[in-house]
Amino acid sequence: MDYEAFFGAEIAGLHREGRYRVFTDLERHRGGFPRATHHTPGGPRDVTVWCSNDYLGMGQHPKVIDAMHEALDRCGAGAGGTRNISGTNHYHVLLERELADLHDKEAALIFTSGYVSNWAALGTLGSKLPNCVIFSDSENHASMIEGIRSSRAERQIFRHNDPEDLDRKLSLIEPGRAKLVAFESVYSMDGDIAPIDEICDVAEKHGALTYLDEVHAVGLYGARGGGISERMGLAHRLDVIEGTLGKAFAVHGGYITASEKLCDFVRSFASGFIFTTSLPPAVAAGAAASIRHLKGSSSERARHQERVARVRKALDAANIPYMPNTSHIVPVMVCDPVLCKAISDTLLDEFGIYVQPINYPTVPRGTERLRITPGPLHTDADIDHLVGALSTIWQRIGLRQEAAE
Amino acid sequence: MDYEAFFGAEIAGLHREGRYRVFTDLERHRGGFPRATHHTPGGPRDVTVWCSNDYLGMGQHPKVIDAMHEALDRCGAGAGGTRNISGTNHYHVLLERELADLHDKEAALIFTSGYVSNWAALGTLGSKLPNCVIFSDSENHASMIEGIRSSRAERQIFRHNDPEDLDRKLSLIEPGRAKLVAFESVYSMDGDIAPIDEICDVAEKHGALTYLDEVHAVGLYGARGGGISERMGLAHRLDVIEGTLGKAFAVHGGYITASEKLCDFVRSFASGFIFTTSLPPAVAAGAAASIRHLKGSSSERARHQERVARVRKALDAANIPYMPNTSHIVPVMVCDPVLCKAISDTLLDEFGIYVQPINYPTVPRGTERLRITPGPLHTDADIDHLVGALSTIWQRIGLRQEAAE
Ligand SMILES: Cc1ncc(COP(=O)(O)O)c(C=O)c1O
Ligand SMILES: Cc1ncc(COP(=O)(O)O)c(C=O)c1O
Repeated sequence: MDYEAFFGAEIAGLHREGRYRVFTDLERHRGGFPRATHHTPGGPRDVTVWCSNDYLGMGQHPKVIDAMHEALDRCGAGAGGTRNISGTNHYHVLLERELADLHDKEAALIFTSGYVSNWAALGTLGSKLPNCVIFSDSENHASMIEGIRSSRAERQIFRHNDPEDLDRKLSLIEPGRAKLVAFESVYSMDGDIAPIDEICDVAEKHGALTYLDEVHAVGLYGARGGGISERMGLAHRLDVIEGTLGKAFAVHGGYITASEKLCDFVRSFASGFIFTTSLPPAVAAGAAASIRHLKGSSSERARHQERVARVRKALDAANIPYMPNTSHIVPVMVCDPVLCKAISDTLLDEFGIYVQPINYPTVPRGTERLRITPGPLHTDADIDHLVGALSTIWQRIGLRQEAAE
Repeated sequence: MDYEAFFGAEIAGLHREGRYRVFTDLERHRGGFPRATHHTPGGPRDVTVWCSNDYLGMGQHPKVIDAMHEALDRCGAGAGGTRNISGTNHYHVLLERELADLHDKEAALIFTSGYVSNWAALGTLGSKLPNCVIFSDSENHASMIEGIRSSRAERQIFRHNDPEDLDRKLSLIEPGRAKLVAFESVYSMDGDIAPIDEICDVAEKHGALTYLDEVHAVGLYGARGGGISERMGLAHRLDVIEGTLGKAFAVHGGYITASEKLCDFVRSFASGFIFTTSLPPAVAAGAAASIRHLKGSSSERARHQERVARVRKALDAANIPYMPNTSHIVPVMVCDPVLCKAISDTLLDEFGIYVQPINYPTVPRGTERLRITPGPLHTDADIDHLVGALSTIWQRIGLRQEAAE
């Protein structure tokens, strides 16, 4: 078989569909977020980033940067091993304590990413719990889907954010069987929020474990940044809360928090936890500093919400439609991959504004969008410039509110 | 179902088998490797680490540390997004170029770990290549096994390092089918090295892609640290060379190098590449500095091999048996999980020497061992102290050469 020809043909297919991805080569300016240098074939250019998942700009916070410098000087670059074989660093231990405390759980376990935490935890629970059925929200993230798939447990998909459908599906399973309900708090592409309390009610009624991905909520919601589950006072009803250290906490890595025994179980049996070099000490130290700061400070969260509201208001005034939701994510719908990329290119080239077009497989085909993530560091002038640029483009290409929905 | 009782029972089973893992809480001393602080309930103690996979001590190299400090100050803590959505940093681009050059390939692709690189690349190739059969060495690492498993491709396991068995198995498959041979260069637990040339001959004869994991060889072998494939002049015969940034390069992350098209294909289709926050800029910068240094400097590699030889000679003189191999790994076989842990505990408590006991599932049951990894920073006195301690323990517990094999 001609492998190169095969790869070439597959890539050509992506080009034809208009969804071949070109990565935007950036250097964010520490101390000057959301500004970054965009490296282009024609040379470097300054841009304003409007699609970062470093939602609060903590990636340049002096406490985070200082903690990383210090750990680097103290312990060196990498961990030097897997957690079991010389790679447990004291910073990991401290970070796990910080995380357990954040979600008011007995224990926490860190992974090399949020993706790996979902994949490894769900894969291990689903495969080891005897005869387990996993109930998965239809909009769950790829990492959860892959974890469930790799567990080979029976999988039931329930309608997105629909506790009644979940109830119906749970009712069909024998009461004694192991069951797990996996869902997210803030869904990252539409920005909608799960009815966590109702889902917990249903799960409890049927004796199912609850597993909540708070990746797009930790640091951002709740009095101490414990996510939507903290804000709603529901953390104790969730058996597992999963999160990332790479978005609002602005460093890298992922975790679960749960009971001592559940964490010990995953720690002991998950291939994706065991057989991999642990996070660099500096990464663990930076993440812990970020969490600690956001536990004690709500000003970033308040300013974040205020900026989001201001962007929405400006978009409304300019008659640019976006998908409504109660979170911090502002999806401006374009619904065509080629047009979406063209708009994004124009924003970048003409206006120095970087908003990545989001296409399949990240969102369903036909729902291509500009996913705007306002942050506390975007100024009023930044917002005016963004919305002005969008208005200009909308007028130029004759996009109407109707066309965008 | 009583989930907590289930987890508790599973953990109790590990205790009964003597393979419950207790992580050793360390702080390595940057500038003083292989020394570290061991945090114990009784307070901190200094130890010498003898089981790190930071094989060359590059984790404290000034060039690596400086590069990380600089990137941290320049770009901040984390990347702030996935590669596609604002998370491609210029340091990633430079690192990928460095890696392609290291293995003399057209392109490279970085992942959040070596584990994820194997899992995602093999999973994607195996599932997308039409009707693919993957031939997997029987001793392949967990990350390759999981990748192959997740691909759901037909899998054929060939006898460890046995090109004849591979040939036989390949002969049974229809010639036109897509085929991939997955194997490692240095097997990390036994330290044996694959007959890469013969495996490439067989693969070529049958038109199979070759996929080589050089995780325990990159940085350590070859004139520029390109691994065993470089040392043997075989890099061009391997379709994919996979490696880690977390062992000899001493930071964190993983990669594949291959043709432009193959990398672009994996980049475009691998869930584990797409849906996850990219590595922190400082991690990419540190890894690139480490690779660059080891391309130009062979003194660390020479000293590494010399130290390994010296440890083996001292063990021979003390009549302490180890598994022979032609790599840098010195497995001192104990072949009992409880005894292995007891010896490791004694080394740590009485002698300040840290060698983690290796047990199932990392090695097969009954082959428990102390896996010693001498490095360029271990002094003659360190070696004498290690071998003296092992002698004392061996005499005390009456272990004989026979008993250990
Ligand atoms: C809902 C959700 N879960 C998990 C992840 C993975 O987290 P990480 O980026 O830390 O791998 C992401 C995105 O990256 C996500 O959107
Ligand atoms: C052979 C082999 N491949 C891959 C890996 C995974 O690499 P990483 O530690 O970067 O995840 C390891 C060990 O960790 C390994 O031993």
